[in-house]
Amino acid sequence: MRNTARWAAALGLTAAAVCGPLTGAAVAAPGAAPSSLYAPSALVLTTGHGSDAATATPERAVTLSCAPTASGTHPAADQACAQLQGIGGDLAALKPAPGVWCTKLYNPVVVTVQGVWQGKRVAYESTFGNACERDSMGGVFAF
Amino acid sequence: MRNTARWAAALGLTAAAVCGPLTGAAVAAPGAAPSSLYAPSALVLTTGHGSDAATATPERAVTLSCAPTASGTHPAADQACAQLQGIGGDLAALKPAPGVWCTKLYNPVVVTVQGVWQGKRVAYESTFGNACERDSMGGVFAF
Repeated sequence: MRNTARWAAALGLTAAAVCGPLTGAAVAAPGAAPSSLYAPSALVLTTGHGSDAATATPERAVTLSCAPTASGTHPAADQACAQLQGIGGDLAALKPAPGVWCTKLYNPVVVTVQGVWQGKRVAYESTFGNACERDSMGGVFAF
Repeated sequence: MRNTARWAAALGLTAAAVCGPLTGAAVAAPGAAPSSLYAPSALVLTTGHGSDAATATPERAVTLSCAPTASGTHPAADQACAQLQGIGGDLAALKPAPGVWCTKLYNPVVVTVQGVWQGKRVAYESTFGNACERDSMGGVFAF
């Protein structure tokens, strides 16, 4: 019986050594933040001239991450994250800043925001009459 | 005639002073790289358990930018960018690394890659039988 137990233990250790590397990669995502700490937020924003994203060439595209800190190639990541946090990530709630006057010239620009905000997928597209109207929405589109 | 020219010049300057701030915002995108230097590349990658992105909760999400340098919250941005450059951004061309053996256990994970690669929109989704199979694709999904 003692021998059987010893064999079982040895087999168990061997199995762990062999199978460990196979399954380990799935568990230990290198450098990734444990999802229990905070829900992931990672976005990519684009802007381009045109009336819809399907046909407009993205002229600029930036990344934005707001957790644990504001980062990304977005040139005003801090302001963009503050604005997104203020509207709870609901881009449809964006409003133009008061007191900004834009020409009515029609030269449409389309912006997209894709990715994940606090664990939920984001797929946002909006077309503005011109770049001034887009910029009036604040820091989130200032890239 | 001289007076008329002076008036015209004065009116022109006034118009520029009034209209300048309106259109200026469209021209001077703060901090954005001139699109003539390189086409934009900015991606957001997600992974989650499930068979398709529409129903799977994104458990991890990272940003990745490969121009002018590899950056983002992707923990292996350098390798991911090198891999993407090697396949010209065509994620459908990804192949599993040779010599990697995975269990056949079915516990599907779905990955998405969205954004812009060298000026072209990217919308990629792929489902793997388990996390080991996903990880066998290399650094791009190692987050």
